[in-house]
Amino acid sequence: MTRTIVASATREIIIGFDQPFCVIGERINPTGRKKLAAEMVEGNFETVKKDALEQAAAGATMLDVNAGVTAVDPNATEPDLLVKTLEIVQGLVDLPLSIDSSVTRAIEAALKVAKGRPLVNSVTGEEEKLEAILPLIKKYDVPVVAISNDETGISMDPDVRFAVAKKIVERCADYGIKPQDVVVDPLVMPIGALGDAGRQVFALLRRLREELKVNTTCGLSNISFGLPHRHGINGAFIPMVIGAGMTSAIMNPCRPQEMEAVRGANVLAGTDKDCMNWIKTYKDYKPGATVAPAPVATVAPGDGAAAASAGGRRRGGREARRAAG
Amino acid sequence: MTRTIVASATREIIIGFDQPFCVIGERINPTGRKKLAAEMVEGNFETVKKDALEQAAAGATMLDVNAGVTAVDPNATEPDLLVKTLEIVQGLVDLPLSIDSSVTRAIEAALKVAKGRPLVNSVTGEEEKLEAILPLIKKYDVPVVAISNDETGISMDPDVRFAVAKKIVERCADYGIKPQDVVVDPLVMPIGALGDAGRQVFALLRRLREELKVNTTCGLSNISFGLPHRHGINGAFIPMVIGAGMTSAIMNPCRPQEMEAVRGANVLAGTDKDCMNWIKTYKDYKPGATVAPAPVATVAPGDGAAAASAGGRRRGGREARRAAG
Repeated sequence: MTRTIVASATREIIIGFDQPFCVIGERINPTGRKKLAAEMVEGNFETVKKDALEQAAAGATMLDVNAGVTAVDPNATEPDLLVKTLEIVQGLVDLPLSIDSSVTRAIEAALKVAKGRPLVNSVTGEEEKLEAILPLIKKYDVPVVAISNDETGISMDPDVRFAVAKKIVERCADYGIKPQDVVVDPLVMPIGALGDAGRQVFALLRRLREELKVNTTCGLSNISFGLPHRHGINGAFIPMVIGAGMTSAIMNPCRPQEMEAVRGANVLAGTDKDCMNWIKTYKDYKPGATVAPAPVATVAPGDGAAAASAGGRRRGGREARRAAG
Repeated sequence: MTRTIVASATREIIIGFDQPFCVIGERINPTGRKKLAAEMVEGNFETVKKDALEQAAAGATMLDVNAGVTAVDPNATEPDLLVKTLEIVQGLVDLPLSIDSSVTRAIEAALKVAKGRPLVNSVTGEEEKLEAILPLIKKYDVPVVAISNDETGISMDPDVRFAVAKKIVERCADYGIKPQDVVVDPLVMPIGALGDAGRQVFALLRRLREELKVNTTCGLSNISFGLPHRHGINGAFIPMVIGAGMTSAIMNPCRPQEMEAVRGANVLAGTDKDCMNWIKTYKDYKPGATVAPAPVATVAPGDGAAAASAGGRRRGGREARRAAG
C-alpha cells in the first residue's frame, strides 16, 4: 500500500489510496497576486497569516507555501523570503506544509528550517532539475511532487507524460528515494481547450496507480480555465479524479463547492468512516447556505484532524516518519 | 459500441458510452406521494402535466411514467391508469418515455399505445418476471431495465448481483433480445448504511461495461438515503458513476445541484462537445443563484435536444429504430 507521510511539528498525515483526499491549500502564493507579492516584498505577512488560518479553518489537509515574488534575481532573494514565509506559517497552523519553489536554493533553505516532514513542490523530468532536487529529497528524507514534463515541455500525448513520470520515479529509485515518496502530477489541461483533457487524466491516474503505484496530485482548477461557472466544473472534476485514483490536489479549500465535492467523494470512496466528517460538516446544512468555516483559531484543525485520526496516528516529525517509512 | 435507442414520436435518443448521460426524470410516480396518488385515482392529471413540463424544461433526457397508486387490485386498475398517464405525457412533451410498472398487464397495455420506442422499467432475475416480461420486450422490440435481484432478494455481495445481471442478459439473448437493449441496474445501496456501497457500484459498473457491454442505470438518490444534505452526496456520486461508466440514471432533473453535476461530468467525460451545453447553461451564471429552467413550453427541448443533436439524428419511431438497431 502506497503511503506518503507528511508531517508538521505535531501532526502527521498520510496520503494514500485508502485515505481521505489530501487537500493542499494553494492560497499562499504570490503568483498572479500583485498585492500579496508587494506585501511580502515589504515584509508584510498579514495576508499570508490570514490565508493560512482561513485555509486551515476551511478544511485544508496541508498548505502549499510559495514565495515567488518574481524579483529581478530570485536566486538571491527567494531563499530568505521563502524561509520567512514558511516560519510564519508553521508558527501559526499545525498542518503539514508543501515547499513550493522553482529555485533550488530556496527549497534547500526552507528544508533546513521546516519542522516535521514537508512535501517538496516540485521536480520535473528535466535533467538539470532532477540533478538539483533529488539529492535534497534524499538528504532530507522528504517526499516530492514530480511533474510530468521535461526539456521538451508538456506533451499533449498522455503516454509521453506517463513515460516522463516513470522516468522520474526510476531516477528517484537511483537516489534511494522510494515510489511512496514521489507524488506524481500528470498535468491537467483546460477542458475548454482540449476536449479530451478529462479522459486523458482519468486514464493516466489509473496507470500511475496501478503500474507505478504512486500517489498523485494536480493543480486542480486548471481543468476549468476559460469556462463559465468554473466551480461547477471543478466540483464535478474532483469526484471523477478521486474515483480514478487521485489522492491529493493543490486547490483552494476556501471554496465551499469544491470542498463539498471532496467531502462527498470521500464518503463515496469509503474514506470518510461512517460518514462522520460529512455528518459533522453538514448536519445543520440549510439549502442555499454555504457552510461557514469553523471559527479561526491559532491552531485550526479543519478536516485534517479527521484525516489524521482516520490514519490512527498523530505523532509527527522524523521519529514517526522513520517508523512509518 | 453499445447503443440503446429510445424514442418518442418525434425524437430519438441514444444511450451509450459516448453519449451525454441520460437523465430519466423520476417525478411522475405516485409511490410515496399520497396527494399525487389521490389525484390520479380521481382522474386529475394536473400534477402529472406539471411534472412532465418541469422535468422537460429542467433538462431531462427521458421521463419515467409510473401509475402505481397501490389500489386494492393493481391488475385490474393499473393498466388503464398507466395508459391514461402515458397518453397525457406523450401528448405534452416529445421526450422518450420509460414505462414503469410491476404489473405485467399494465406494461403491455402501455406498450400498445406508446409512440416511438419506450424503455420498459423493469425486469428482474426472478423466473416469473423473466417469463412474463421478456416476450413483451421481444414482441414490441423495445429496450428493458434489468434489475440485479432475483427470488432470493437483493444480494449484499456485488459478485452475486453481477451474476444475476449476467443471467438476465443471457436469458434476453435466448429470446433474441440483444445486450444493447438491456440496461442493467446494479442496485445502489445507501452509503450511510453500507460504507462500501460506492466502491461496490463503481466496480460493478466497470464489469457491466467491459464484460457484459451493457448500458446501465440506477435509482440515483438511494445512495444518500438517511444522510444530511443529500444533494451534496448525490452531486458527488453522479460524476463518480459517470466516470465509472454509468450511462443513465432515474433521478430528479428539477434539482439544480444534481443537474449541474451531470452537465459538468458530461464536459469532463468528453460527451458535451466543445462544452456547448455547459456554456449555454452557465454563461450568465451568478454565484449563489440556481439556474432557472427555460420557460415552460408545450414541447420543451431541455438538454435532451443537445443529446439528440450530438447523436446526429432526430428521426424517431420504429423506422429509425430498425435502421439503427
